[in-house]
Amino acid sequence: MPNPKPSLHTCLSPALLHLYDVSNAIVVIVDVLRATSTICTALNNGARCVIPVDSVAKCIELSKQIGGISAGERDGKIAEGLEHGNSPFEYPAEFIKGQTLVLTTTNGTKLLHIALEKGAGHIVTGSFPNLGAVCDYLVSQQQSVILGCAAWKDRINIEDLLFAGAVISKVKKHFDINCDSSSMSETLYAGAKKDLFGFMKAKNASHYRRLSGFGLEKDIQYCLTPDLANVLPVYDNGKLVLPNS
Amino acid sequence: MPNPKPSLHTCLSPALLHLYDVSNAIVVIVDVLRATSTICTALNNGARCVIPVDSVAKCIELSKQIGGISAGERDGKIAEGLEHGNSPFEYPAEFIKGQTLVLTTTNGTKLLHIALEKGAGHIVTGSFPNLGAVCDYLVSQQQSVILGCAAWKDRINIEDLLFAGAVISKVKKHFDINCDSSSMSETLYAGAKKDLFGFMKAKNASHYRRLSGFGLEKDIQYCLTPDLANVLPVYDNGKLVLPNS
Repeated sequence: MPNPKPSLHTCLSPALLHLYDVSNAIVVIVDVLRATSTICTALNNGARCVIPVDSVAKCIELSKQIGGISAGERDGKIAEGLEHGNSPFEYPAEFIKGQTLVLTTTNGTKLLHIALEKGAGHIVTGSFPNLGAVCDYLVSQQQSVILGCAAWKDRINIEDLLFAGAVISKVKKHFDINCDSSSMSETLYAGAKKDLFGFMKAKNASHYRRLSGFGLEKDIQYCLTPDLANVLPVYDNGKLVLPNS
Repeated sequence: MPNPKPSLHTCLSPALLHLYDVSNAIVVIVDVLRATSTICTALNNGARCVIPVDSVAKCIELSKQIGGISAGERDGKIAEGLEHGNSPFEYPAEFIKGQTLVLTTTNGTKLLHIALEKGAGHIVTGSFPNLGAVCDYLVSQQQSVILGCAAWKDRINIEDLLFAGAVISKVKKHFDINCDSSSMSETLYAGAKKDLFGFMKAKNASHYRRLSGFGLEKDIQYCLTPDLANVLPVYDNGKLVLPNS
């Protein structure tokens, strides 16, 4: 008899993470707009590592201590006291190469810390810009997977679900998927994939409204485009790094 | 200037209800398979009232005390010690007319009690068999609405979301809807409405699997059919009753 396939679940809000057994799974932190898109972009552009922290105060303190770049947002804008924001365009190679980014965001880094507290076995970050790398990794590991959506202050959002759907559509034959949140995500993605940006706009997605109100359509376009920064950030001892880096 | 429209939100799990202000809203308890479908059916067939209780012990005690019918399920099956289950087909007029049903279920009655604890202003129950009555009521009240999905042990399920989508597709012009869970529900419903049963089956919905495993396809078909028991159960002082009954 062939080995049973590992399971895959999608968790649509940090407030639901307690329902899943993260200790025996790979947890993919998904915060499409924009934390996890920015994380893979910074690493792809040569950042030494990204240190996710859960408060602005820690971000300022740690970045001073280690000579890193303090960055992050609260409510979609650069948080007071930080040097940089949460846009992937702030981290081109000429700026970020060899640097350490200390990052705090409203949802993405918060979810990562919740997953850690709950004893997550393995943590990676996922977003459209590194969709391919995430899928290759999940297929290669033959372990259970939880796609953890960062949402917005615990409220479910469309774009993280679309990313979950994109992953599922690519890896599903390798997993045993009995999870309504996963099949909903896959169904929504199937209807949206031809034009993700247009879908977000047509559905009046809350995050589309929030960011386009700040003039950040370019960020949204980038963050919905697959494989522009196709590397795999892996959480290791307090840092997100590229494997074998 | 015209009055601003009231808001409408969809809450996909009881574990997310704390994110919404239920005190100033009509909360629609949605447990399509099967609690809220059974509640409107029993009332439509002449039940005097349905008393939702949150434990099997209370259900047994109260039904003895008042000469009511103890009913309910745990994990989809009749709970030990109760006389009847949670199938709408158990409550035809010849059985239920003039009777009081004391009901406890895994998810639906639990959500109702959470909403009460959180100070919900007005509570009604919704399901496909009373879709029209729910929509007419929501449009007539001109108040904020929270569509509260009962889910399955806090895990989001497809069928409650489909019902939320059905309601939204009918009432949206009367409400201000800025809620990703609502637009996702409406989008899924639009793709599923031609054949809700087929959609549930094709998506391998968890509740479809659970109930069809018990031979309850007939229940699922009934619970996905609009307006078969088109009355509005309203929560009033511990009981679900029909208005002006």
